[in-house]
Amino acid sequence: MRQAGTNLPKVGRYNRAVVLDQIQLADGISRREVAQQTGLTPQTVSGIVRRLLEEGIVREDGASKGAGGGRPPTTLRINPDAGCAVGLHFDPAELTCVVVDLLGRPLLSKRHAIRPGAVPSDVVTAMADLVGDVLAEVDVPRSRVLGLGLACPGPIDQDLGLVLAPPQLAHWTRVPLTQMLSDAVGLSVTMDNDATAAAVGERWSGAGRGVANFAYFFFGTGIGGGLVLNHQVYRGGSLNAGEFGHTGVLPGGPACYCGNRGCLESLVSPSAIVAETHRRLADQRGGSVLWEPFSGDPATVDHAAIRMAAAAGDQLAGAVIDEAARHVASVAVNVVNITDVDLVVLGGRGIRHVEERYVDAVVSAVATRPLSRTVRVVDVALSPLGADAAVVGAAALVLHATYSPQLSALLAH
Amino acid sequence: MRQAGTNLPKVGRYNRAVVLDQIQLADGISRREVAQQTGLTPQTVSGIVRRLLEEGIVREDGASKGAGGGRPPTTLRINPDAGCAVGLHFDPAELTCVVVDLLGRPLLSKRHAIRPGAVPSDVVTAMADLVGDVLAEVDVPRSRVLGLGLACPGPIDQDLGLVLAPPQLAHWTRVPLTQMLSDAVGLSVTMDNDATAAAVGERWSGAGRGVANFAYFFFGTGIGGGLVLNHQVYRGGSLNAGEFGHTGVLPGGPACYCGNRGCLESLVSPSAIVAETHRRLADQRGGSVLWEPFSGDPATVDHAAIRMAAAAGDQLAGAVIDEAARHVASVAVNVVNITDVDLVVLGGRGIRHVEERYVDAVVSAVATRPLSRTVRVVDVALSPLGADAAVVGAAALVLHATYSPQLSALLAH
Repeated sequence: MRQAGTNLPKVGRYNRAVVLDQIQLADGISRREVAQQTGLTPQTVSGIVRRLLEEGIVREDGASKGAGGGRPPTTLRINPDAGCAVGLHFDPAELTCVVVDLLGRPLLSKRHAIRPGAVPSDVVTAMADLVGDVLAEVDVPRSRVLGLGLACPGPIDQDLGLVLAPPQLAHWTRVPLTQMLSDAVGLSVTMDNDATAAAVGERWSGAGRGVANFAYFFFGTGIGGGLVLNHQVYRGGSLNAGEFGHTGVLPGGPACYCGNRGCLESLVSPSAIVAETHRRLADQRGGSVLWEPFSGDPATVDHAAIRMAAAAGDQLAGAVIDEAARHVASVAVNVVNITDVDLVVLGGRGIRHVEERYVDAVVSAVATRPLSRTVRVVDVALSPLGADAAVVGAAALVLHATYSPQLSALLAH
Repeated sequence: MRQAGTNLPKVGRYNRAVVLDQIQLADGISRREVAQQTGLTPQTVSGIVRRLLEEGIVREDGASKGAGGGRPPTTLRINPDAGCAVGLHFDPAELTCVVVDLLGRPLLSKRHAIRPGAVPSDVVTAMADLVGDVLAEVDVPRSRVLGLGLACPGPIDQDLGLVLAPPQLAHWTRVPLTQMLSDAVGLSVTMDNDATAAAVGERWSGAGRGVANFAYFFFGTGIGGGLVLNHQVYRGGSLNAGEFGHTGVLPGGPACYCGNRGCLESLVSPSAIVAETHRRLADQRGGSVLWEPFSGDPATVDHAAIRMAAAAGDQLAGAVIDEAARHVASVAVNVVNITDVDLVVLGGRGIRHVEERYVDAVVSAVATRPLSRTVRVVDVALSPLGADAAVVGAAALVLHATYSPQLSALLAH
């Protein structure tokens, strides 16, 4: 693919998105401030805002905060009720569906379990039923629903709308899920992998709002990653950027299905943490609140139980989590050295209850180990979207595709 | 910094650069092909080409290759003599200066040794003399010299034109080198770190021509890196992206000045390779062509001698180089997993004579270990600019700043 030129209509759409982005990022902003922030002329901003007001996407709202003397300039805000987006997170074990307003705030969410071994058509039916239930309950007219965002475990083929052989869904090879789901629910569907969706959610309404460059570590079934570089979601040459989970941290460590050895995921995935905890419990035969449940039925000592024990102060569980957090921190240092991001965000349900242990390890590492620390220290944030990062991110995929200033659209052929 | 809008004059300059880029990449191209490649209308392309012809930057050149029946369309080519750029590589031990034509082809180059402990004003004088000598000898009128590109060891402060405390130049802290050099030679100066300059050179006239996403491993005094993502040089939030040399490969390995332990540079820099070779020679006391010179004067067994011995088939030297190459390959896998580039390029004088060993190790690793290898296998290339990558890259900084389509200019405030 060659580098493309641009033209007036594309520039118009792009500038409209840039203005909307500023209004969405600010908690009230004047036309003059939008012009200052974007480098657009006041005339261009006025014209764009007039059309956004006519369409009801933006509303005027009294005086701008911090305005000086004279007639206070009118404040612009997003009208959160002008539309909504549906998000669907497809986890191998569970579907989660959410409806969010234009600011990315969840209005309602629901869950539905998937039985092991479910075939694609069953899952699509369950997805369509869940979306129907949620939309009926939240009572939004269909005309206001901008679309459906779908977050799936990777790898996916975004152009074809396919799920490509996810490791946990052995017979789900090359399923045209986007088309099947769009036919079943009657909405346009935007699909991405769960980690990228979570990063987009973070950019829209989480810790990544207005941050030019950030890396997102997503703790789900595995360890996914998302990158926003120069204000754009960065997907890479084959749409597989941000595979932080498969970068190496321990030469000669455990073999991973990815082809690498000692990669992060092989050491800190839920199953790796469970295996390591079970090994230590079997060795020590006590000295942990997990010993009794483990000696009764090892299966009860799962990832959630280990995280809760660590959070409650159990030393054995805490040591396993802290070791995992140190490996994550080493990869965060590598990501910072390679991509020079401004911010590292941690999120997803896989760090629930032990968020601080992971954040502390990463904060300490990025403050002391990247070469660029002498120029500035990278920020670290816990996702405010928490365990819902992927499903809220799925809905944000729609808002992002509809409203965000995307260079790919500015430069598309 | 907020995401900026754009306007008509910026779009005009950007599209001009996009057209010029296509003409520079092709070995003869018609106006129609330029329009197809860039998505611009034939009218826009015609207008831009007319002005480029008037300015003498582009020339018409008979029939386009592969044209069908009818009147053959006119072929457009860059006029390599329309201008030239000067490149200067500031290595702590040596200055190298080159003049290149508009296609990035070297016309003449010269070297000048720097004595240890030289102060900034001495070095600037030596730089100005060297540039003056080269320009006098190559006999190009000053009016055709587009500018001077300067490649320095990092870290640098690009906005201020400063060199920030390079490790090998202890008392060179915050020197305003760009301004000093510009005053001394009477040319505008564009500065970047040596690895980024080498990547820009690769994009202009080397292995990275027309490649949307590539990572460049630069083997100089240390191990530098450069990234081109989405056709743009990616510099990161603090202009320190691409520090591949300081990513970790061996937990608990040797401490590095960067703050990390077991990072690539601490294991495979010239001094690390020399230390490891000396250690093995002292242990084995023979079994290598390097033993005799080592037992006479260890200082004679330097990085170049070790690389040459490895190239000549010496087992001990070959084993040290191969171990270094395996560490580089591991980092290449991490870079591919994180950035999903299409191509990895290796260059710089630090791999001279043993290029194949490094290329082979990286080829083998990126074919088997990144997660995305199931989607496509990343290309690996040796820099055709070889040991001159940094100085030719320095000159290419000027061509890049003058002619390349840069989104930062399209979106600048």
